[in-house]
Amino acid sequence: MQEFELIRKYFRPLAGPGAFGLGDDAALLKPPAGCELVVTKDVVVEGVHFRAEEVAANVAKKALRVNLSDLAAKGAQPIGYLLGLMLPRADDAWLSGFTQGLREDQKTYGITLLGGDTVQTLGPLTISLTAIGYVTEGNMLRRNGAQAGDVVMVSGMLGDAAIGLQVLQGKRQTADDAYFVDRYRHPQPRLALGQALRGVASACMDISDGLAQDAGHLATQSGVAIWIDQARLPVHPALRALQNWDAICAGGDDYELLFTVPAEKEKLLTHIAENAKIMLTKIGVVEKGEGVKIIDGDGNLLNLSKCGWQHFGHTN
Amino acid sequence: MQEFELIRKYFRPLAGPGAFGLGDDAALLKPPAGCELVVTKDVVVEGVHFRAEEVAANVAKKALRVNLSDLAAKGAQPIGYLLGLMLPRADDAWLSGFTQGLREDQKTYGITLLGGDTVQTLGPLTISLTAIGYVTEGNMLRRNGAQAGDVVMVSGMLGDAAIGLQVLQGKRQTADDAYFVDRYRHPQPRLALGQALRGVASACMDISDGLAQDAGHLATQSGVAIWIDQARLPVHPALRALQNWDAICAGGDDYELLFTVPAEKEKLLTHIAENAKIMLTKIGVVEKGEGVKIIDGDGNLLNLSKCGWQHFGHTN
Repeated sequence: MQEFELIRKYFRPLAGPGAFGLGDDAALLKPPAGCELVVTKDVVVEGVHFRAEEVAANVAKKALRVNLSDLAAKGAQPIGYLLGLMLPRADDAWLSGFTQGLREDQKTYGITLLGGDTVQTLGPLTISLTAIGYVTEGNMLRRNGAQAGDVVMVSGMLGDAAIGLQVLQGKRQTADDAYFVDRYRHPQPRLALGQALRGVASACMDISDGLAQDAGHLATQSGVAIWIDQARLPVHPALRALQNWDAICAGGDDYELLFTVPAEKEKLLTHIAENAKIMLTKIGVVEKGEGVKIIDGDGNLLNLSKCGWQHFGHTN
Repeated sequence: MQEFELIRKYFRPLAGPGAFGLGDDAALLKPPAGCELVVTKDVVVEGVHFRAEEVAANVAKKALRVNLSDLAAKGAQPIGYLLGLMLPRADDAWLSGFTQGLREDQKTYGITLLGGDTVQTLGPLTISLTAIGYVTEGNMLRRNGAQAGDVVMVSGMLGDAAIGLQVLQGKRQTADDAYFVDRYRHPQPRLALGQALRGVASACMDISDGLAQDAGHLATQSGVAIWIDQARLPVHPALRALQNWDAICAGGDDYELLFTVPAEKEKLLTHIAENAKIMLTKIGVVEKGEGVKIIDGDGNLLNLSKCGWQHFGHTN
């Protein structure tokens, strides 16, 4: 199968407005009136970000959703994406499953394919995806606005995906394996939440590399310290029973939103959580200073044996 | 070296407006008033699109310029790019050279780095680049506007890069090796020309996969036939002496613009060529029908032993 046949067969049906049926060199794009575009890129590599055994539709969804999660963190509404696909071989069954996964998620998230490039590689299957969304002008959420006195919030539950990966690797068995594996396989970009946080959150980011490390980025960008109360961390009961704080604080792949809110706006969060249908938990406070401190029930600093996902020197 | 250290050291200095020093999840972007954004993505893989022996700065420039060439084909003015970098290893000398290449081209083309992602891969070095530019509303050049009676034009000279690659592979020696190699290594995106063709060309694209194949895409998109006069093809004298019509018509990596112009606008091209400082050559005409015909001096169809670059099953 040649490149152009492959595009015609699998990718053209996914193309949306401005993509010209993928028959041109580029896509045309204009933000809605009064809006700005938000652009992000995340790459996923077989053997690093997803398992070689993973079915094609799940690979597609993971590649898409980790990018949509970045848009969620900015409070953006997604429009579409460009797909860079590096294929070891052109395999019909795989491409069929992969594009089926894209199709399902395009429907779920109201987005379309804008363009991209498909090339042959001698290396592992790799997907480099650029996602584009928009926000009303001046309303994009940033990482740099947290101030001393703000409360620190997180959506959903932490550590599930790290346990899910251990289950898939045969390293662990729990009564809730299906739940944990699904949390690993299918990140849930918190788009409705992110959009509701515009004008409310003082800083926001998604947790992809583990709470401890990502809170560190938010603290650095904002020039503050973040104090987290271990007892408040939202954790699935089965995971709490395991007492696996590495998974919870440094496991990665959570794709929940970590954000800060001025104390006087905290009362707005109940309504926001209800509308976005997501649990929100106050896990700490912003203080003057720098760095992240996770405090245990005895008032001591939690000792993490590692400090989150690092891309060089770590594969799964 | 960890991912974040690598970003701080090598890529943050390249970041421009809207990229927030690469400290956030995404970049913010707005087209100038009255303009639309043009977005394109091309992937380059070591061993496929560039040689493993290539110096890092040249790899950077090639990755950037093949994308800028797509913007040129749309008549767009480039703004910036997102960089997906898949590295087999984090090598200081290589990264230093690579980012030096990016820095030089950022200056040449007036663009900045908007964001991206750097990941480790077990496979070949791969660069997935998304370039963004803008055009005045409704003025983007397309592939689908060629009409019977239009003249077919090409910029610069054809086949040089294909010969340059053969020289690098030790398959060929010429008196002009340095010229041919430079044409392979350093594509020249025809941005000034593309912008000048807005409102003049009826269809336009860049030639990346060889004239024969790319003219075929333009013909298909426009629903016309393209007749090309072999004797008119602009060819470097040293290459003409070789009579290597495969390189000229199907070599790939030309990154010249192929475009069509209504006969009554042909007279505008002299001025455009002068301003853009590029040779423009009339190589044929648009006819009713379909496909591409290259006619030799005897009025016969040129028999090409291959029909242009194909990404699957072909590596260099």
